[in-house]
Order: sequence, then structure tokens, then C-alpha cells
Amino acid sequence: MDFSSKLLENAVNEVSRLPGIGKRTALRLVLHLLKQPKENTKYLADAILQLRNDVKSCKKCHNISDTILCDICSNPNRKEELVCVVEDIRDVMAIENTGQFRGLYHVLGGKISPIEGVGPQNLNIESLVDKVKSGEIKELIFALSSTMEGDTTNFYIYKQIEKYNITTSTIARGISVGDELEYADEVTLGRSIINRIPFENSLRQ
Amino acid sequence: MDFSSKLLENAVNEVSRLPGIGKRTALRLVLHLLKQPKENTKYLADAILQLRNDVKSCKKCHNISDTILCDICSNPNRKEELVCVVEDIRDVMAIENTGQFRGLYHVLGGKISPIEGVGPQNLNIESLVDKVKSGEIKELIFALSSTMEGDTTNFYIYKQIEKYNITTSTIARGISVGDELEYADEVTLGRSIINRIPFENSLRQ
Repeated sequence: MDFSSKLLENAVNEVSRLPGIGKRTALRLVLHLLKQPKENTKYLADAILQLRNDVKSCKKCHNISDTILCDICSNPNRKEELVCVVEDIRDVMAIENTGQFRGLYHVLGGKISPIEGVGPQNLNIESLVDKVKSGEIKELIFALSSTMEGDTTNFYIYKQIEKYNITTSTIARGISVGDELEYADEVTLGRSIINRIPFENSLRQ
Repeated sequence: MDFSSKLLENAVNEVSRLPGIGKRTALRLVLHLLKQPKENTKYLADAILQLRNDVKSCKKCHNISDTILCDICSNPNRKEELVCVVEDIRDVMAIENTGQFRGLYHVLGGKISPIEGVGPQNLNIESLVDKVKSGEIKELIFALSSTMEGDTTNFYIYKQIEKYNITTSTIARGISVGDELEYADEVTLGRSIINRIPFENSLRQ
């Protein structure tokens, strides 16, 4: 692309560094900003700068927070001994939306992925193992993506903590609520049969 | 969406104001920035702020430019008397990429669209009429989108300038190069038959 202005070229290049945004989309976004009042661009720039510079992660669960302890970790009504291990804060938001979980979280910040150069040392695994060691956790729920990287990460953590006396569980994999059996993949359907639950339990959900 | 941090919520809200970007995409983009070095966010914010504050539009053609006259208008090798009327600077870039046009442009900044509240007074039409009046233009090429708004805008401008002695033309509508006839819409195919060109001409292109 040939730009008529260096400023425009620079802005388009910076915006197109964002994931999933190509040069054409970046140009569209930047031209949109030019049609809006100047303040809007300032608000946008300020918001991302302030977030990047002032954001904290919760000392306990590594969730993004404005305070040292996040709202979940500092809530006395949540069960401290039940910890759900998730990849990133989007998973925390997704699980919180269900309203079904009253324990705490531990945000790893990613999955072990040799291809992307992410090893166990790049994730918040050590602090999780320390928490288990200290005896404050009774049950650990693994809620990572059901991919090779997710399974690898689960297994790595499991190996580090199996010598301590805690319960470990993983979220149920099965047919989505509302899905038709004929369209389900065979691995999921197979697992949902192996891990079947008493019918009476399903009546109560 | 419930956010664990006000800063995060604010950043997501600002980013999701951009066209075509919802809350989920905004969250993904913002979390991406958090994983990158702080400088990257600064470069992004600086680039859009600088563009918004310092951008100029060419005095002559209203194209985005870093100087008073843009590179195209100040190029002595371009034909000043041939002017192509376009909606916005993306169209200038698209036509420049073809390498087929050696005249100047006139960027309207949009189309007449009563639904979106855009009237002739919101577009750079007056300065175009002034240019025509002054006698510096011999031919005007309309290269707006082939939509109702584009046609309305063409016609409005045409009515303003028809009393002056200049040639007006519009870019050819027809079957795209490489397209199969059977998939073409009937209006385009009909126009391509009415506006057929001598076969010898097509050999030279």
C-alpha cells in the first residue's frame, strides 16, 4: 500500500500489529478515527496507555485487578480451599458468568506450548505449587482448553502436585446442552458415555 | 460482561467503539497489548494521536497529506486538467495502484446520504465547482461507488457544473476481468453490452 501521508502510514502500521487486523482493516479503523471528534482518539489512546501502565495482577490468583487482591480473592464468601486453574482472565469471566462456581481461581497466563516458545517457567505454575504445598487448597479443578497444549499443561501441573494430599478434578467434557447427538464428534460422544452421571443428578441441574 | 478491573473495562469500551469491533474482540486486542512490551502500546497510542492531531488535508484535492499540497497535486508530470472525483482516500489509493491514471483527484469525503445525515454541504463539492468555474479542468471523471448514494452524488455535482464547458465521464461498469458471465448480475451484464467497446481496443489493454 502506498500512503499519501507518513503519519497515516505509521498509524496504519501500528494498528495492523494487533492480532487479526490486516492493513485494510487498520486503514478503515484509522480513517474512522479521523472522521470522529479529536477527543475520541484521545480517550482511546489514554484508555489503552493507562491500562498498560497501571494494571496490576492479583497477588494471589494473577487475575487482572486494580487492587493488590482481586474482588474474588478478597471476597470472604468464597471457598478458599477450592481453586479452579484457568488459562487467562477470559476464562475467569466465562466461569463467573455461569454463577456455578464459588471457589477461587488461579490464572496461569497461558498454556505450555513449545511451538510458541511457552514453557512452564513462563506461566504462573510455581505459585500454584507453592499454594498446594502450604496446604491451603483441598481441591484443584483443571479448566483448561481441551487441546494438546491444555492436556500437557494439566499433566505437568498434576505431576508437580500429586505427592501432596489434595483432590484434583477436571471439568466434564460431553455433549453441549441443546446439541443433537448426530452432529457431535465421536471423541466427545465417547467420553460422555464413559463419564455418564446418575440420571437423578441431571434432574437437579 | 463483568470485568475484574475498571481500567480493563474502560479500555475494552473505548476499543469496542471502533467500527466492526465488538466487546469480545476488543477484550482479545486489549489482552494482547498486555502481553506485549509496554513500548508497543505507547507506539500505538502515539501513532493514532499524532495522526489525529497533526494530519492535514491537501488544499487542492482534500487527500490526506503531511504537506499543504499532496504529492500527487504537486507532481508536475500529472495532467492538471484531468480530475477524478472519488469518495475517500482509499479510492485514491486503489486507483493509484492501477497505474492507469495520470491526472489529479478530488476527494469528496463521502457521498450524499440523507439516511446518514450527509448532505452536499458536508462534502467537498463547493471547492470542486469552484475549480470547474475557474476553467482549470477540462475533463471530470466520476469514480464513485455504483450505489444509489453514489449516483445521487454524481448527479448533484453534474447539475452544478453542466453549464460550464467541460467533458464529464464515469468509469466503465462491466464484467470484472476473470469473471464468468453466468455468475454476473443482469444489470451489470446488460450495461456491459450497451457500453461495448471496439474489439481492437481490448487487444491493446
